[in-house]
Amino acid sequence: MTILHGYWRSSAAYRLRIALNLKGLDYDQISVNLKDGHQRDAAHKALHPQGFVPVLNMDGEQLIQSPAILEYLDETHPEPALLPGSAADRARIRAYAAVIGCDIHPIQNLRILQYIRSEYGQDAEGVKAWCQRWISDGFGALEKMAEADNRSGPYLFGAQPTLADIYLVPQMYNARRFGVAVEDYPHLSAADEAARAHPAFEAARPENQPDAPEDGH
Amino acid sequence: MTILHGYWRSSAAYRLRIALNLKGLDYDQISVNLKDGHQRDAAHKALHPQGFVPVLNMDGEQLIQSPAILEYLDETHPEPALLPGSAADRARIRAYAAVIGCDIHPIQNLRILQYIRSEYGQDAEGVKAWCQRWISDGFGALEKMAEADNRSGPYLFGAQPTLADIYLVPQMYNARRFGVAVEDYPHLSAADEAARAHPAFEAARPENQPDAPEDGH
Repeated sequence: MTILHGYWRSSAAYRLRIALNLKGLDYDQISVNLKDGHQRDAAHKALHPQGFVPVLNMDGEQLIQSPAILEYLDETHPEPALLPGSAADRARIRAYAAVIGCDIHPIQNLRILQYIRSEYGQDAEGVKAWCQRWISDGFGALEKMAEADNRSGPYLFGAQPTLADIYLVPQMYNARRFGVAVEDYPHLSAADEAARAHPAFEAARPENQPDAPEDGH
Repeated sequence: MTILHGYWRSSAAYRLRIALNLKGLDYDQISVNLKDGHQRDAAHKALHPQGFVPVLNMDGEQLIQSPAILEYLDETHPEPALLPGSAADRARIRAYAAVIGCDIHPIQNLRILQYIRSEYGQDAEGVKAWCQRWISDGFGALEKMAEADNRSGPYLFGAQPTLADIYLVPQMYNARRFGVAVEDYPHLSAADEAARAHPAFEAARPENQPDAPEDGH
């Protein structure tokens, strides 16, 4: 059985839920409560030496790091392709993923926010300003990339959902949480809306997970 | 002609130099002086909407984001493989790359250090503490991953250099700059030493680049 150790609100776990759903793969979820710090429990760190989610148990393997796991899923279950097209197309799709997966998301990871709170005395407003800055920087670049690629939609890289959408949708969710004006990025907003209407993305939404609190917070 | 827009001290450009050398591909370099802020010039931002290096011009394509470009190089020039072995092996190699490429390097990127200086009033010591914290966190996890993988070396994932070493060596260079006790990570240190002795890595070293200042600073 495939088991996803995740958390309803984790962007990286959200990416894996979308990909597993797109590939039509069944999985069970084990919730690691990040709000209560259970990612730092010895039992979880035995699964993931960084003390992060997600961890995916699949095919007898224990896999960490969503960028690596997404490539694994696409290699072992090629249809539908998360990286369709030529090598250059694939590089463009992976570039969208990297802007989000390297230059936006990890900078507003929980441990970083905890550090700027405890070491630099930042309050909720300071944390929000920090997150908004890096999300806006990254979204500005992604919007220009989408303009230059000039695909006709509805998804970020054309007619079918790709790895780019798998990264975009959780980051847009996160951006709305931190009050980023997502409507300032029309290509990203349109692709996000199209993707969220897709059943694989819909089922992966944070609020649709078994560990999501009823009030959504 | 293949052209790498980079900078001698950029970790991400360093990764690409190693990969191009391993693949035996010739390239010219155009230096974008990050110290003087030329990455934010309009001419450079027309090449890279984030205002980052590297940019690779190759095969008539203009490619950004080193994680995407490294995969492109491996797809278009399969030998020697940067991701050898089974799908699970490849996922493990990519996990090393992701720990560095997502959870260490971008957090101590120049723009972040500039922000914690200007917004949080951090001096050189504060910046050093910030960098050391995220490098040590990541290296601690990588060392455990290497222990668990239990490969016999000399490289991080066994007998041949892989994508894992391409990420490791520039990050170790960076760690030494920020005074991290790299000897605390014996698997990483041994792999770094082996890789740096390889001609492809040797030629890619920051101090061996045409734009490196003579005093190495």
